[in-house]
Amino acid sequence: MSRAPWIAKVLTLYPEMFPGPLGHSLAGRGMVNNLWQLEAVQIRDFATDKHRTVDDSPFGGGAGMVMRPDVLDAALEATLSAGLAPLVMTPRGRMLNQDRVRDLAAGPGVVVLCGRFEGIDQRVIEARGLEEVSIGDYVLSGGETAALTLIDACVRLIPGVMGSEATLDEESFEEGLLEYPHFTRPADWNGRPVPDILLSGHHERIRAWRLAEARRITADRRPDLWARYCTRHGAGSH
Amino acid sequence: MSRAPWIAKVLTLYPEMFPGPLGHSLAGRGMVNNLWQLEAVQIRDFATDKHRTVDDSPFGGGAGMVMRPDVLDAALEATLSAGLAPLVMTPRGRMLNQDRVRDLAAGPGVVVLCGRFEGIDQRVIEARGLEEVSIGDYVLSGGETAALTLIDACVRLIPGVMGSEATLDEESFEEGLLEYPHFTRPADWNGRPVPDILLSGHHERIRAWRLAEARRITADRRPDLWARYCTRHGAGSH
Repeated sequence: MSRAPWIAKVLTLYPEMFPGPLGHSLAGRGMVNNLWQLEAVQIRDFATDKHRTVDDSPFGGGAGMVMRPDVLDAALEATLSAGLAPLVMTPRGRMLNQDRVRDLAAGPGVVVLCGRFEGIDQRVIEARGLEEVSIGDYVLSGGETAALTLIDACVRLIPGVMGSEATLDEESFEEGLLEYPHFTRPADWNGRPVPDILLSGHHERIRAWRLAEARRITADRRPDLWARYCTRHGAGSH
Repeated sequence: MSRAPWIAKVLTLYPEMFPGPLGHSLAGRGMVNNLWQLEAVQIRDFATDKHRTVDDSPFGGGAGMVMRPDVLDAALEATLSAGLAPLVMTPRGRMLNQDRVRDLAAGPGVVVLCGRFEGIDQRVIEARGLEEVSIGDYVLSGGETAALTLIDACVRLIPGVMGSEATLDEESFEEGLLEYPHFTRPADWNGRPVPDILLSGHHERIRAWRLAEARRITADRRPDLWARYCTRHGAGSH
């Protein structure tokens, strides 16, 4: 494989959090095999005063501290490079989804700025054209677990990282539906049998059953996804 | 503080991924101070055959392997205890949000099952009444980074974990809006000045400006949140 390794550079006040979970299992093996590379950059190294200050009080008042634009800009200047998508993890961002993950994984890599404290000075986000990305509608103690999540989602799509790439085909969201339920041995467990249809050997009927289950679960749990699926597939009622 | 520590038990094939990022910074200090406890349980220890098998092929065919209900049930039997919310991380789940995080953080703790491979036998999810939780519409290499994300979100709400609890008040999502932009020193950075209003000292006008910004950003980036906000606050046009 002659493809250049996918690159993830993370700007953080806690480089010791990386690679963290990504150093194990398939992602970890992919890193050892140079399918992808991770670099954690200490933002504090770009502070210029004696105390290596990275934050200051917010203009306009309010609780918490804000990360300074000049320090972050110096860290970005040393880290950004052509082709790498410049991202900042923040609950103010647009919601990450599997389409965006696929785009990011298909490119050369990402530079991910992790916010801490109350937030990041907005001017550096605009000056550097950082894409504000949210992984979900909840608040984290910092951008680091969000960055680990985003990188995990990308890395598993890099060719060679997953053991069997076949499994990528029928994943959740590829059809715009939540996945159907899975069953394995034992066929009868504690008086709970596997659905008969799955033991029938009728591939076509099994496929129809799984699609019906995926639709039922999506309609029940995620009216938003279901509405989009119905629009894309016509009436969607059968 | 005499409150019992908040408990997170994680069932995983990769206990070495924990505490990972949660062993550092505020979450890590909170663990040292016994404000919360983390236990990573190796699922494989509950397999009963010589090879300690935890997975098998899916009934009905298809790619990938499925985690066995009997092995997971034994691991859950040894781990679940009264009051702890039983969760399984899966993209099929209901979407996590800050309201659910607040509920989980206010309770005694969580037991989090992390799926790997193609998925988990559905019968054990139903038999144990596990709540299926998704952190977002993307696919991860396993439930572990999702579990770290969920636990991070909960732990920062545990009294004493954050340095200043005041900052919790005006967080994202507390009002149903994305947060307004932040600014700090220098007041003029590379020819980019801080918005005048923030230097005015008029607290009431600053508050109005921030609310207007939060509304503008929410309407622009998150039509779904904006629609809900407008419903809750009347017409929402001013």
